[in-house]
Amino acid sequence: MSETKKVLQSVKEGKISVEEAELMLKTQPLIDLGYAKVDTHRALRQGAAEVIFGEKKTAEQITGIVSAMQSSGQNGVLITRLSEAKLKKLAVNGVIEYFSEAQAAIVGEKRAADGLGRIVIATGGTSDMSVAEEAAVTAEFLGNEVERVYDVGVSGLHRLLSYKETLMSASVVIAVAGMEGALASVIGGLVSCPVISVPTSVGYGASYGGLAALLSMLNSCASGVSVVNIDNGFGAGFIASRINHMGK
Amino acid sequence: MSETKKVLQSVKEGKISVEEAELMLKTQPLIDLGYAKVDTHRALRQGAAEVIFGEKKTAEQITGIVSAMQSSGQNGVLITRLSEAKLKKLAVNGVIEYFSEAQAAIVGEKRAADGLGRIVIATGGTSDMSVAEEAAVTAEFLGNEVERVYDVGVSGLHRLLSYKETLMSASVVIAVAGMEGALASVIGGLVSCPVISVPTSVGYGASYGGLAALLSMLNSCASGVSVVNIDNGFGAGFIASRINHMGK
Amino acid sequence: MSETKKVLQSVKEGKISVEEAELMLKTQPLIDLGYAKVDTHRALRQGAAEVIFGEKKTAEQITGIVSAMQSSGQNGVLITRLSEAKLKKLAVNGVIEYFSEAQAAIVGEKRAADGLGRIVIATGGTSDMSVAEEAAVTAEFLGNEVERVYDVGVSGLHRLLSYKETLMSASVVIAVAGMEGALASVIGGLVSCPVISVPTSVGYGASYGGLAALLSMLNSCASGVSVVNIDNGFGAGFIASRINHMGK
Amino acid sequence: MSETKKVLQSVKEGKISVEEAELMLKTQPLIDLGYAKVDTHRALRQGAAEVIFGEKKTAEQITGIVSAMQSSGQNGVLITRLSEAKLKKLAVNGVIEYFSEAQAAIVGEKRAADGLGRIVIATGGTSDMSVAEEAAVTAEFLGNEVERVYDVGVSGLHRLLSYKETLMSASVVIAVAGMEGALASVIGGLVSCPVISVPTSVGYGASYGGLAALLSMLNSCASGVSVVNIDNGFGAGFIASRINHMGK
Amino acid sequence: MSETKKVLQSVKEGKISVEEAELMLKTQPLIDLGYAKVDTHRALRQGAAEVIFGEKKTAEQITGIVSAMQSSGQNGVLITRLSEAKLKKLAVNGVIEYFSEAQAAIVGEKRAADGLGRIVIATGGTSDMSVAEEAAVTAEFLGNEVERVYDVGVSGLHRLLSYKETLMSASVVIAVAGMEGALASVIGGLVSCPVISVPTSVGYGASYGGLAALLSMLNSCASGVSVVNIDNGFGAGFIASRINHMGK
Amino acid sequence: MSETKKVLQSVKEGKISVEEAELMLKTQPLIDLGYAKVDTHRALRQGAAEVIFGEKKTAEQITGIVSAMQSSGQNGVLITRLSEAKLKKLAVNGVIEYFSEAQAAIVGEKRAADGLGRIVIATGGTSDMSVAEEAAVTAEFLGNEVERVYDVGVSGLHRLLSYKETLMSASVVIAVAGMEGALASVIGGLVSCPVISVPTSVGYGASYGGLAALLSMLNSCASGVSVVNIDNGFGAGFIASRINHMGK
Amino acid sequence: MSETKKVLQSVKEGKISVEEAELMLKTQPLIDLGYAKVDTHRALRQGAAEVIFGEKKTAEQITGIVSAMQSSGQNGVLITRLSEAKLKKLAVNGVIEYFSEAQAAIVGEKRAADGLGRIVIATGGTSDMSVAEEAAVTAEFLGNEVERVYDVGVSGLHRLLSYKETLMSASVVIAVAGMEGALASVIGGLVSCPVISVPTSVGYGASYGGLAALLSMLNSCASGVSVVNIDNGFGAGFIASRINHMGK
Amino acid sequence: MSETKKVLQSVKEGKISVEEAELMLKTQPLIDLGYAKVDTHRALRQGAAEVIFGEKKTAEQITGIVSAMQSSGQNGVLITRLSEAKLKKLAVNGVIEYFSEAQAAIVGEKRAADGLGRIVIATGGTSDMSVAEEAAVTAEFLGNEVERVYDVGVSGLHRLLSYKETLMSASVVIAVAGMEGALASVIGGLVSCPVISVPTSVGYGASYGGLAALLSMLNSCASGVSVVNIDNGFGAGFIASRINHMGK
Repeated sequence: MSETKKVLQSVKEGKISVEEAELMLKTQPLIDLGYAKVDTHRALRQGAAEVIFGEKKTAEQITGIVSAMQSSGQNGVLITRLSEAKLKKLAVNGVIEYFSEAQAAIVGEKRAADGLGRIVIATGGTSDMSVAEEAAVTAEFLGNEVERVYDVGVSGLHRLLSYKETLMSASVVIAVAGMEGALASVIGGLVSCPVISVPTSVGYGASYGGLAALLSMLNSCASGVSVVNIDNGFGAGFIASRINHMGK
Repeated sequence: MSETKKVLQSVKEGKISVEEAELMLKTQPLIDLGYAKVDTHRALRQGAAEVIFGEKKTAEQITGIVSAMQSSGQNGVLITRLSEAKLKKLAVNGVIEYFSEAQAAIVGEKRAADGLGRIVIATGGTSDMSVAEEAAVTAEFLGNEVERVYDVGVSGLHRLLSYKETLMSASVVIAVAGMEGALASVIGGLVSCPVISVPTSVGYGASYGGLAALLSMLNSCASGVSVVNIDNGFGAGFIASRINHMGK
Repeated sequence: MSETKKVLQSVKEGKISVEEAELMLKTQPLIDLGYAKVDTHRALRQGAAEVIFGEKKTAEQITGIVSAMQSSGQNGVLITRLSEAKLKKLAVNGVIEYFSEAQAAIVGEKRAADGLGRIVIATGGTSDMSVAEEAAVTAEFLGNEVERVYDVGVSGLHRLLSYKETLMSASVVIAVAGMEGALASVIGGLVSCPVISVPTSVGYGASYGGLAALLSMLNSCASGVSVVNIDNGFGAGFIASRINHMGK
Repeated sequence: MSETKKVLQSVKEGKISVEEAELMLKTQPLIDLGYAKVDTHRALRQGAAEVIFGEKKTAEQITGIVSAMQSSGQNGVLITRLSEAKLKKLAVNGVIEYFSEAQAAIVGEKRAADGLGRIVIATGGTSDMSVAEEAAVTAEFLGNEVERVYDVGVSGLHRLLSYKETLMSASVVIAVAGMEGALASVIGGLVSCPVISVPTSVGYGASYGGLAALLSMLNSCASGVSVVNIDNGFGAGFIASRINHMGK
Repeated sequence: MSETKKVLQSVKEGKISVEEAELMLKTQPLIDLGYAKVDTHRALRQGAAEVIFGEKKTAEQITGIVSAMQSSGQNGVLITRLSEAKLKKLAVNGVIEYFSEAQAAIVGEKRAADGLGRIVIATGGTSDMSVAEEAAVTAEFLGNEVERVYDVGVSGLHRLLSYKETLMSASVVIAVAGMEGALASVIGGLVSCPVISVPTSVGYGASYGGLAALLSMLNSCASGVSVVNIDNGFGAGFIASRINHMGK
Repeated sequence: MSETKKVLQSVKEGKISVEEAELMLKTQPLIDLGYAKVDTHRALRQGAAEVIFGEKKTAEQITGIVSAMQSSGQNGVLITRLSEAKLKKLAVNGVIEYFSEAQAAIVGEKRAADGLGRIVIATGGTSDMSVAEEAAVTAEFLGNEVERVYDVGVSGLHRLLSYKETLMSASVVIAVAGMEGALASVIGGLVSCPVISVPTSVGYGASYGGLAALLSMLNSCASGVSVVNIDNGFGAGFIASRINHMGK
Repeated sequence: MSETKKVLQSVKEGKISVEEAELMLKTQPLIDLGYAKVDTHRALRQGAAEVIFGEKKTAEQITGIVSAMQSSGQNGVLITRLSEAKLKKLAVNGVIEYFSEAQAAIVGEKRAADGLGRIVIATGGTSDMSVAEEAAVTAEFLGNEVERVYDVGVSGLHRLLSYKETLMSASVVIAVAGMEGALASVIGGLVSCPVISVPTSVGYGASYGGLAALLSMLNSCASGVSVVNIDNGFGAGFIASRINHMGK
Repeated sequence: MSETKKVLQSVKEGKISVEEAELMLKTQPLIDLGYAKVDTHRALRQGAAEVIFGEKKTAEQITGIVSAMQSSGQNGVLITRLSEAKLKKLAVNGVIEYFSEAQAAIVGEKRAADGLGRIVIATGGTSDMSVAEEAAVTAEFLGNEVERVYDVGVSGLHRLLSYKETLMSASVVIAVAGMEGALASVIGGLVSCPVISVPTSVGYGASYGGLAALLSMLNSCASGVSVVNIDNGFGAGFIASRINHMGK
């Protein structure tokens, strides 16, 4: 039973007064650390706990936020954009599993896989792997089965087509590609499930740090393709998980 | 029963040989009109029939494509970006329903609403309505119940908050906004379902034809938000429908 | 026999003095019309006569340039970006053949097809046809056999794959596409001949008038793909012809 | 009494001649250090002393400018964009207070808080703090009471709404945000005082170093929002102070 | 006395119950016209009534919104971006005053000038006048005295300097300029009040529709300058009015 | 003798008092027409009278400005960006000569050619002529001999080289080109005089309205090349005239 | 004899069954290394073996891919964007030849020069050499005779013209230039063979990392010029080789 | 007497044959160092010797080019963009004078100042000094008297105006400024000589590495202003020198 429901139940049962309940509901959702206001009710409201974007936070700040989350009852915490150097400075309670390719860590437990189907993550090339792994770790943390199909860029179409069945049986596909990002359109034309495309900053010259792939994906001639920010593996994994848990 | 299943059934029942079946399957999926190659099997492969993007096609071309689709057994055809002037020049069989705000037409039948829940379409302002209606008509054509919540931009937050329950009970939300596109982030922070955001070209000056809203949505600090092309109401409606039919 | 060779032959045969020859060679190559300096020796130097880019020239200017070319012995003249309205105002000698889809005209004779093989021109969609036709008319004018494969965009991959043999037997392929321009990469991965890609301004929103397709093509992960300007069907046809006449 | 007024008073009282006075007024306002022309009369003309933008100046140059200011009677000097390394090389007279988060220092005295009301500084996230602190230190240096409300980004709207009263009672609000910068619009819709928005370079991918937030803020659908340069905390604090001292 | 205060007073005096009051406060602020949700309490919350941005609204929509505003007790309504053609189709009650240079209309009454001082509006050239007039009409509507100083661009510095006293005695200055937008910096260096700068789309070539002026103003080396969107005369007038009413 | 000198001379000779002189100098330089402040002393200060940029001014405004200039003793007035339609509505005293290719008019007299040498204006193509003519008319108005060398783009290098002597004997060269703007670099490498380059908006696709030519010219590998705004023929003619009158 | 032909020959000769052959053809083309799917049949399909883009791959990954290629019978392997540091960590069988200017290595054998003619590679300046050498090494690896003409930028036209004959006798020209990239247009106007232009990131300021040269080349007024990505020496060498082997 | 004149004189005097002279003239102008083709006749053709852009050249390459220049009789050589580290590795004959602020060196002799007047170089701020010094050293090397007026940005207009006479008596003004670059327009409005403006990359945020200043200068409302590339002090000094030597 959720915390809020517990509070409401207590009101109904006359255990606490309306005023007490109001105070509890009002004061609980935020733990104010000064540098951050930790949202302890997000899981209630949105079906997923707050995730820590580690890139510009210090190890001390991350440690503090993890503690605040744990103290409000959250068992698993995902930290993204966490370098190995910063990882070593964390001082958190509980087990930390680190994923170096993804530059992410999980403190505590993942949710068991309970989605509608399998999330397939495809990349155009070897260099797109770190973004793809961020998506994969995120999706697994949020309770999804993930299958990886890497280095299947469209310049060698038979590589992609040899995974046609894997793709066509997916619940959601995440298409991760830099350079010209054509992978999203080609997959979008093959499958009948939602496709989340992630442009990556892989490329040089007129790829403009992922802009070419981003524009390509936004203009995809295939109909079921939506887009997230450049290199936003986390966002893609998060959305894919929501879709893979529809009706749950 | 679909054409392909009929073919396969016929093989199973020995009515036609394997070779005949192969030929049929191979030759059917395209009707070549010269100016267009109509894909008559897309419904089979992808769960939705081909839709006609009317903007740069002549009335003659559209008429020809509709006929080709009908001749291959497709009962409903959606035509987007169809001006009223061009509508009048169409010469198609069957009933046409025209949606002037959306600049779209449906020839024949819509699919009955059979999704998981309701798709809620919100707009920042009055001027975003035509894009929102394109999304709405698309979603309805593809078998979804749609609820419209228009003109709830974030500059008057209580307008949006007074629809909080409608938004929180949605299966999918489509957030349509021009100018600074903040609507997507605010809705993204309120709901726990997937949010498809559509930047519109509404605005002036440094809105750069929707670029400001597009960048804003791509950089949304809310986690469950993905993005389609500027003014791409159709794309948003299509993806939302796919998500709203997950597991079906 | 070319004019320059004739001059040189006359020198060799003592018919004209070296000084007279020098003067002739020096003064001939330009006919100065004031508003234009017609290059009457380009065919000599570069293997193709000057083509008239009609877009910003008046009918009078075009007429004048055609006359100057004809007076210097050029039998066929190609005029591109020529509207039907402007065509009607031309007052040139000889037969004019007009190609309305391509917005181009040929005054006089085409060169007979004498290339190494066939130039195949593929488009992503119906709306790319006018650019493709500009390429086709240019290539045919310059002595090439052309085969058109239109509306085979990658969102319906089987459409493209059903023309795999046509593409693989081409001498040169011209890939014409707007929106995300993925066609170039997919074709580039299939064929072993040079691919000239032409981004088109077909699309809306974040296609930015062909920029998305242009960047996509420049960043193609397929190796044999080069690019010309947005909507530059003429340029693609011209280069393809040069390649198709290698060693001739 | 200001220097200029003193000069003028002396003229009135016959203590100095008009010619002497003219010379004094003409020669005083600039101290020419070669690499800089220090404006010693700006406080007179504009109500605030010159501030030193330290980023591209050497410690020697900064030391020289501080001395020149002090010698012309300025008691407090603010130095922005001053790294801790450069701070250590300064050789100035008087007390230096260093603000490491803001990367700023104050030599000598701040002005006592004497504004109309309180300046509230809000940030979207933890990473926006250094820009916000630059604004805060600037405003405090110029005689304002400042209240900080950090990490209240719109993806968790209740975080922001729990500070609604603080915001609504402000004299001026400075909204500091990177990524999609929606904070400015939401605050702009809540309050009735002027809002100065500061886009920050916090973000990645298509945030383009703060461009997304900048465009978002320029296109704000809320009416009372104006914008300063990306990461320009100083500018925001300066303008807010001017507004908070209106009529004084 | 405001509507909300009246409601609260009635509660205090026992005239209506708490429940009735809550309902009134909850239901009043929005009148839902379908295409628009009119915010009838904004004057309460934000000190200025809702203004109608007329550009993409039909005459019918504008008429409806004006009626809704009037029915909720708002005496004056400002409509911006209103063409003369659309003006003629309006069917509103009360007097309409139309300002053709500003492309704006006021239905009903302006607020009497009650600001701290005078708002001075300066332009770089003659062509910036329509944007400047939008700002002027807005400021006058909101209760400010306005002085216009037009065509004082920096290329003829003495033109600007001859208005130095007007500028230096202003309460707020609005600097309106296209092309290189240097006016904002020069004025910013002269005055000690807040400067709101408005880039305009006046210019050609590399002015890029006002981008050059916008960037120039954002990077102003003068400290008290903030910026609004290109051609956003309304926004500048609105903010200037807020500043000119500080403490009121 | 200039007006200012006359005033000063009169002071010296005791004909007018210092106070009268001050007033005259202070009040003369501006005639305030409301919509414009005509600078009647610019010829004094800057060696060239004010020129009217006609594009966004009404015929009435232009007429007024011409009258004000004439009334302050200016004999010749140049009006640029003046359409033929607007020309017909002018009501000015004196002879008007109209240059339709240049879209410019001269009211009254040109200055007789008195420069150091000849200004040569070269264009890449026929379509660059209107910009070149604006430069030519401006230079002629300001007292320069002009030689036109049009349609000598670098794709036919011998066209340019046949004018090598004309170019090498110029006092200043103005290089006008659209598309890739290579003309400026090639001429810059040939001549030893200053080269003013003018990018034009001639081109299509990735020429981006002259941006390609502008960037090309800014990055010229030839050393003596400076640049003016896209299509700014007037500016080029003006600067070239200044250079051609050095020491005069 | 190629592998595929061997398989087919075996089928024809009855040595293996059709089913066995199908399996062999189907399974051979990919060796899956997890991080990469090595395409072992590309030589068959496309006339050139897969090349390894080394930039973002680890030495271990490169070693693995080289081994996979060698095990499938490929004798020569080209590795581009390979730093000297990474070279030292490679552990491959066979001879490695390293080209430090080009940052490329060849493992095993080059193909003997067997093209139609000579590929001439020209650069604008000394700084373009590394890109030019990448093109040269690639072309030589693929069986072409290469001639280098470096530092012949258009600002000193006679430098270029003194190589006119070399250029005019080329089979294909690769024009490599940064800054304003005018070299491509000038060469394009001189020769009658295909020109592949490569913009480089050489330059500063408004060269925008090669954008100026890229736009310049896309807008070339010379007709036979196509373009590849900024700094893409490999791509240019590859395409030039394909053209130089037309009909072979 | 110049080398070419000597050759021609020798012909006239019968000392050498026409053929010998032709050979000498043809072979001399280039010394081919492989990595560079040194243009030894540029001084003849263009009035200034070749300058070495040192940024991407190795110390060895620079040494070689200096030697080649010296061997062809050039007494002074200017090297720009030369770091102190690279300076120490040079091994050239003759005296080197190094200018650390300008990052430039002169090998051998400067030309004595022999221009028409004085070149005045003004900067907006202290940080623009290195670009200004590059311009100053270049101009001095080429025989010009230079006066520096640094840190006179328009935000403190009286700083600039106190140098009004210096500016108004200049032969040419070079205006160097970053941020919003307004200095160019203000100076352009004050002086009657040519103004060369140099945008610098000084600034942050939306200055975009000098783009804001560049656009500002291109759109200057003052008429006599032309522009060179961002940070191109050398180019400005070179052009200013040409103008200051007009007629010489």
